[in-house]
Amino acid sequence: MPELLRRRDLDFMLYEVLDLEGVCTRPLYADHSREDFDTILDAATELAERAFAPHAHALDETEPVWDGERVHILPEVAIACRAYGEGGFIAGVFPPEVGGLGLPYTLAMTWVGIFAVANLPSVSYVLLTMAAANLIDAYGDEAQKERWLPEMLAGTTFGTMALSEPHAGSSLADIRTTAVPADDGSYRIVGNKMWITGGDHDLSENIVHLVLAKLPDAPAGTRGISLFLVPKLLDDGSRNDVRLAGLNHKMGYKGSVNTALNLGEEGGAIGWLVGEPNQGMRAMFHMMNEARTAVGLEAAALGCAGFLHSLEYAPQRPQGRPIHNNDPTAPQVNIIEHADVRRMLLAQKAYAEGGLLLALYCARLVDDVRSLEDGSEAQLLLDLLTPICKAWPSEYGPKANDLAIQVLGGAGYTRDYPVERFYRDNRLNPIHEGTNGIQALDLLGRKVPKNQGRALQLLMAQISATIAQAKSHEQLVDDATTLEKTLGIVVQTTMSLGAVAMANDVERYLANASVYLEMTGHLVIGWLWLKQAVVAQSAVNHGVSHQDQAFYTGKLMACHFFAKWELPKCRGWAKLLDPVEDTPLRMQSEWF
Amino acid sequence: MPELLRRRDLDFMLYEVLDLEGVCTRPLYADHSREDFDTILDAATELAERAFAPHAHALDETEPVWDGERVHILPEVAIACRAYGEGGFIAGVFPPEVGGLGLPYTLAMTWVGIFAVANLPSVSYVLLTMAAANLIDAYGDEAQKERWLPEMLAGTTFGTMALSEPHAGSSLADIRTTAVPADDGSYRIVGNKMWITGGDHDLSENIVHLVLAKLPDAPAGTRGISLFLVPKLLDDGSRNDVRLAGLNHKMGYKGSVNTALNLGEEGGAIGWLVGEPNQGMRAMFHMMNEARTAVGLEAAALGCAGFLHSLEYAPQRPQGRPIHNNDPTAPQVNIIEHADVRRMLLAQKAYAEGGLLLALYCARLVDDVRSLEDGSEAQLLLDLLTPICKAWPSEYGPKANDLAIQVLGGAGYTRDYPVERFYRDNRLNPIHEGTNGIQALDLLGRKVPKNQGRALQLLMAQISATIAQAKSHEQLVDDATTLEKTLGIVVQTTMSLGAVAMANDVERYLANASVYLEMTGHLVIGWLWLKQAVVAQSAVNHGVSHQDQAFYTGKLMACHFFAKWELPKCRGWAKLLDPVEDTPLRMQSEWF
Repeated sequence: MPELLRRRDLDFMLYEVLDLEGVCTRPLYADHSREDFDTILDAATELAERAFAPHAHALDETEPVWDGERVHILPEVAIACRAYGEGGFIAGVFPPEVGGLGLPYTLAMTWVGIFAVANLPSVSYVLLTMAAANLIDAYGDEAQKERWLPEMLAGTTFGTMALSEPHAGSSLADIRTTAVPADDGSYRIVGNKMWITGGDHDLSENIVHLVLAKLPDAPAGTRGISLFLVPKLLDDGSRNDVRLAGLNHKMGYKGSVNTALNLGEEGGAIGWLVGEPNQGMRAMFHMMNEARTAVGLEAAALGCAGFLHSLEYAPQRPQGRPIHNNDPTAPQVNIIEHADVRRMLLAQKAYAEGGLLLALYCARLVDDVRSLEDGSEAQLLLDLLTPICKAWPSEYGPKANDLAIQVLGGAGYTRDYPVERFYRDNRLNPIHEGTNGIQALDLLGRKVPKNQGRALQLLMAQISATIAQAKSHEQLVDDATTLEKTLGIVVQTTMSLGAVAMANDVERYLANASVYLEMTGHLVIGWLWLKQAVVAQSAVNHGVSHQDQAFYTGKLMACHFFAKWELPKCRGWAKLLDPVEDTPLRMQSEWF
Repeated sequence: MPELLRRRDLDFMLYEVLDLEGVCTRPLYADHSREDFDTILDAATELAERAFAPHAHALDETEPVWDGERVHILPEVAIACRAYGEGGFIAGVFPPEVGGLGLPYTLAMTWVGIFAVANLPSVSYVLLTMAAANLIDAYGDEAQKERWLPEMLAGTTFGTMALSEPHAGSSLADIRTTAVPADDGSYRIVGNKMWITGGDHDLSENIVHLVLAKLPDAPAGTRGISLFLVPKLLDDGSRNDVRLAGLNHKMGYKGSVNTALNLGEEGGAIGWLVGEPNQGMRAMFHMMNEARTAVGLEAAALGCAGFLHSLEYAPQRPQGRPIHNNDPTAPQVNIIEHADVRRMLLAQKAYAEGGLLLALYCARLVDDVRSLEDGSEAQLLLDLLTPICKAWPSEYGPKANDLAIQVLGGAGYTRDYPVERFYRDNRLNPIHEGTNGIQALDLLGRKVPKNQGRALQLLMAQISATIAQAKSHEQLVDDATTLEKTLGIVVQTTMSLGAVAMANDVERYLANASVYLEMTGHLVIGWLWLKQAVVAQSAVNHGVSHQDQAFYTGKLMACHFFAKWELPKCRGWAKLLDPVEDTPLRMQSEWF
């Protein structure tokens, strides 16, 4: 079995590219050092390998079952989740004031990636608990924090996010769940929730649902949504009025129980308002933005996992002969000797490691926001990159997994190897936490025009700086020039689109937003590859060990591959945006 | 539920585009008429809807199980397959001399597409039987034909293709199964076979395995492979020495039992030579080429199925509001009103219907080969198009299914809707019957240079003729011009590559063969869309009903979509081929 994520590569990204150690000079993280981080990643790897990875296949084959009373989940999941909580991996990123360890978010996202590769469905329960606890920490009152955070951080109570409803998936403005104030300051909540991961189970002692609902006379749309804390078990141990209505049976991600919940069938679930009335969407988006980064991270991590498995297979599977030798008595070569197989491995490496670095880069921005005196620029950049970080890896991670299957051939199509499972699990990522189509609207409709395009300007400046650095290395001039051209294309296209928006043709402006996201995503990934190449080339220039030489050369080759095979696609996408190609816009339903 | 395949579209392709009625003027098919064809397609649709579609979901959830003695398969499969045989759908394409109906191959491929959508795993058993019987008909001696064809055509005996071995999947040159002559003219066969679909079951009274094996002292490689007929049950009713070694558990296509078989564990399976000694590969490739066309057909048909399901969902699912109306009190619109959803539907239509027409076009060429006095040009064109027909739809069919999932969102990720099943089933198609990488080598390494490029010239002439026709319609000049430019790019790239081959740099010539296949595939699909557009535009010009107007407009829009969104990609691919981009070629294993 290959490593879950390659530690050499994580060290490269964290320390050589993202300067994670740099945050330790700031007051917020001054108590920590690289030594701590390394110990924590060792512990995460050990736990992931011991408690999570071994039951990943069995969990996929043994879907959670609801017998009408209880949800049955493979017992290994509870054991693993408990160990995760006990290991401090939930508490890790929380501030010491609420019982956390105050570790950098970038480090947390790194261990999340390791656990995701080991067993994404199992770890999803505790990841949601981290997110829910985070929301309570940010928006709950002191009493709520005191009541719930200790047991959530310890992992004895789990959390869920109950946003969607059967008729309202993407369009949260249309939720119908209602919350009516009771005399004691609590609320009675009635409604049906859908797609609730971890909505019911016996893995933890209790579950806290964070529920979006509308107060009486709330304004229509997203401005009338409030957030409520609704526990499964009340303080007297009795069950709250939250009932499982059914399980969703999915293509992948099977071990992560996904539910429909009915609230208030017996009069009203008891809940408490979190934050201000009608401010639920703001609170939820606080969590949602981090969840979106996490989706990108997980998608990329699964991409890496498939890459590593196919990279293990290809040098061990003899099949065929070199093109120039058709002597059937010659010995076969391993398939990694075939150029087409190397193409499929290179593409996986480029997609998966590029996506992973994007997610870690965004996590690093979260740390900047938290730890810099003025984190406003980091926040702007993070806001801009969030939809890209969610969508690009969730598009290209599955593409990487598709190539992993193809490298393994028939074997890859069987459930004897994990690559098909990665492919199925990963297919959820372009859908949940806002479909990629919605990310595209968020990017082009909100993030790009925000503050007169200030965020995009910041990004362009970052990219230009890397291009300038790269040009100081003769070996990188070609790739730097390709990225520079791509940057020019994206800038020009954005300006042309801006003119469409200014002409008030919003429908046309946003018609091909998905294309804009893909193009911008490629620019960002191309930049992050060049960033890696600059580090790698500098290291090589200074002389490194044979093993490191191979590692850095791989980075340089993947950068070059991305520049040659992927970046040129931006020109084609730009042509669909400038002018806006309007065939989909003009298409009528009855013509299909 | 939508139609399995839309009959209006099949009629369009068969009669308006491919002139299937035209074959009825030839002696071979003179007994048939469109009326017959329509009746047969009605019967196929009725049977597919009644006996195949209803158990498709259950079969996917109830994988075949081997208890060590017997393979248990959902009983509906046997009932459906029996009805297929009784309905004449196996016998259909065979000549009357051996008990067939002598129907055109194009028609057979059409009904195969219908059954594939209904339930591909179930119908796979009888499709393999068709292919095996075809091989016996073409290469068997009279005694073999008399002995086996009647029961295979009736569907009481099934067939398999036993080519691969555990260590030899793509590289059949390396098989190790041996066949030693016995005194009675039969052979004793010993070896292990892998990936054998339908290798064991109780669905039929008997199974005929067509087995590749090597005679003693056979030459090395593919020139030393012979073909044998090895029945599961011998004529005295005893079991032959063919044992099930295990089942493969797949991501999709689950109902189609896939096996490892051991031959000769008790001394040697009894088999009979089919055709000449050491000519097994030639015979197998006769079958294989038709199997490859069928793979493309099935991949495209599944693509159509996903398209039709998402096209049913999108106009019924309210979600969100028009871009220019953010009033939350306004009613929601159905998602088909969103440009991005229409983009995903258009892409599916373009990929799936384009791929389907390619497969039917190839089938029509098979009919030309069979029924024309001089079918040599048709044969050349067919040989050239076969790897494209196998690979392109098997790449783009799954892409269409991916988009179908995305249109349905969370619902599409559940097993409550069939789109995720299409996606999983379809993922086999780029792998089996020769991976798409192997198709690419076949195209660029064999088919393009064959006869000094004669086949490619024939294709170019066909494409040019369609461009000329299209240009006579003002509305099609743009799309025709785009295709013309693409044709120029492909011609230029092919010539440049030819120079690489002439310089004897075969490794470089073939390094990016997959890219060449994708580019050529796009050219061919772009051509077939323009061909459809010419028919549609002519019809519209002559005045049609409102319903037909919508149908033809849809074809015109899809053609335009392909020209605008897909054909421009060829320029990017050409840049990877001319000159040959060699990053994958230069990449070393240790650098990954």
